[in-house]
Amino acid sequence: MSDPQKTADAVLKGNVRIAARLMRDLDDVCPSAIEVMKRIYPHTGRAFLLGVTGNPGAGKSTVVDALISLYRAQQKRVGVVAVDPSSPFSGGAILGDRIRMQRHATDSGVFIRSLATRGHLGGLSRSTSDVASVLDAMGFDVVIIETVGVGQDEVEVVSQVDASIVVTVPGLGDDIQAIKAGILEIADILVVNKSDREGADRTVRDLVSMLELRGHDSAPVEIVRTVATTGKGIDELANAIERFRARNSDDSAARSRKRAEVTVRELVLDKFRRLTDGELRAHLDLLEAVARRTLDPYSAAETMIQHIGKKSD
Amino acid sequence: MSDPQKTADAVLKGNVRIAARLMRDLDDVCPSAIEVMKRIYPHTGRAFLLGVTGNPGAGKSTVVDALISLYRAQQKRVGVVAVDPSSPFSGGAILGDRIRMQRHATDSGVFIRSLATRGHLGGLSRSTSDVASVLDAMGFDVVIIETVGVGQDEVEVVSQVDASIVVTVPGLGDDIQAIKAGILEIADILVVNKSDREGADRTVRDLVSMLELRGHDSAPVEIVRTVATTGKGIDELANAIERFRARNSDDSAARSRKRAEVTVRELVLDKFRRLTDGELRAHLDLLEAVARRTLDPYSAAETMIQHIGKKSD
Repeated sequence: MSDPQKTADAVLKGNVRIAARLMRDLDDVCPSAIEVMKRIYPHTGRAFLLGVTGNPGAGKSTVVDALISLYRAQQKRVGVVAVDPSSPFSGGAILGDRIRMQRHATDSGVFIRSLATRGHLGGLSRSTSDVASVLDAMGFDVVIIETVGVGQDEVEVVSQVDASIVVTVPGLGDDIQAIKAGILEIADILVVNKSDREGADRTVRDLVSMLELRGHDSAPVEIVRTVATTGKGIDELANAIERFRARNSDDSAARSRKRAEVTVRELVLDKFRRLTDGELRAHLDLLEAVARRTLDPYSAAETMIQHIGKKSD
Repeated sequence: MSDPQKTADAVLKGNVRIAARLMRDLDDVCPSAIEVMKRIYPHTGRAFLLGVTGNPGAGKSTVVDALISLYRAQQKRVGVVAVDPSSPFSGGAILGDRIRMQRHATDSGVFIRSLATRGHLGGLSRSTSDVASVLDAMGFDVVIIETVGVGQDEVEVVSQVDASIVVTVPGLGDDIQAIKAGILEIADILVVNKSDREGADRTVRDLVSMLELRGHDSAPVEIVRTVATTGKGIDELANAIERFRARNSDDSAARSRKRAEVTVRELVLDKFRRLTDGELRAHLDLLEAVARRTLDPYSAAETMIQHIGKKSD
């Protein structure tokens, strides 16, 4: 990559080609890309970051698709970071979301970036944050971060957004199972999608009960019914998002601090993850001894921690 | 905790009270507990580790419950590590699984340990592995590790087991969404639970098609239909597990090596996670500057990485 300042300037002017290359270089953890990010960072913080999470099958991508159309109709530019459900083992990504979002592909006001979970052993949050920062710096008004499921990674991702939508769907199992997903606690707004399906009323009632369990101190959470495939309820969802923004405008300093903490934490851990993987490759003998149970893993780990400490200094 | 060797001896003799205390101390990362683990480790590797994963609502706990009964009827002692779906934010665990498994509570041949995801920021895999090792050392014949969802954490957990069952259920969404869960790649055996429901045939067909997509080099994956609430298909599932064990007995050295790598990696990363969290608390000024955008997070991270390196030496 050429001069970091030139690249940063091009990204800040919204150059799509150079921004895409920067995102690729960030994935590869190029030092030059980090230098670009240092220059871009002071210009971020203007975009509204919206997280969309939920169970597979809930129709997250369709909700995102409908929100893109709505924001585009308001002349807002929309960036999307889709944390893709490619397998962590095979790397084979099924491009469902991207196929669905195809109709926005020729719209220069929309930029969609998919992140494979493969190659992101725990570093998914860091990559998502990097891509969101680039989109923010490019001048996108709304950056939607779509994630699957509710793993720890995703919780970290959600702590970086300004508002978090959790999409659920009728008939996904009984109450206990719904709570299992642990989704309620990260939701600023709950969406019951496919709400024309049987059982929608019960799902809404269950969610209301669960929200009541959270007690009076918890922030209010609106529940919105949608049928994203037809666009039904999407206006109402956008309104709920606006109401949430209005209610939480005072919190923005606290959110910034939390986001700074999560971002720095991920950058630090990402570095140690890479150092650890290098150390593991360099000490196959220790791993072999652990596998044969002639060495215990705790002692092997202590040795490696000392080596890594010397390298990170 | 008293003398590590005494504690280790008590655990190896199957002392439940002392084992439970060791698990708690491991959660708190007590150095004395690590000393006990070093002594226990050479005596592990005898238990059969079985992973049970799947979407919320698929009925994993019911499948686990039925397997416990089956193995108990064979006079096998069964340990269970339930990675609990408590919220990472509130810490409120809903004890659904534990309620269901209550009927085994008075059976001394069964030991169930729930792990909350809270307080395990990325360290879930390490805790799971520790608890499984303790159960293994206590002489449990089968250790079942039940996890929710398909986050990165869970992929790490799965790479520690001898056989991995993925439980799915009819009607969870279309093909693309099912693939989204990324579950196929980690399955040694696929279970279609609630197979008396409408759509079970289609679910099985879809899974067969997806397995065919994996190509000829992939290991064969059996698909078993169950109705775990009635016990239907559980015998067949146990037989499928046995067939898988028989087919893969040659791989055990490779599995041990892989498991050693995952275990050591997690121990190392867990240490750096804790050092990082300490560093973040000690440098609120840096975080504040990042939040105000007077400092970029990349430079803040570099400073912290240097500090941590000095401490871990």
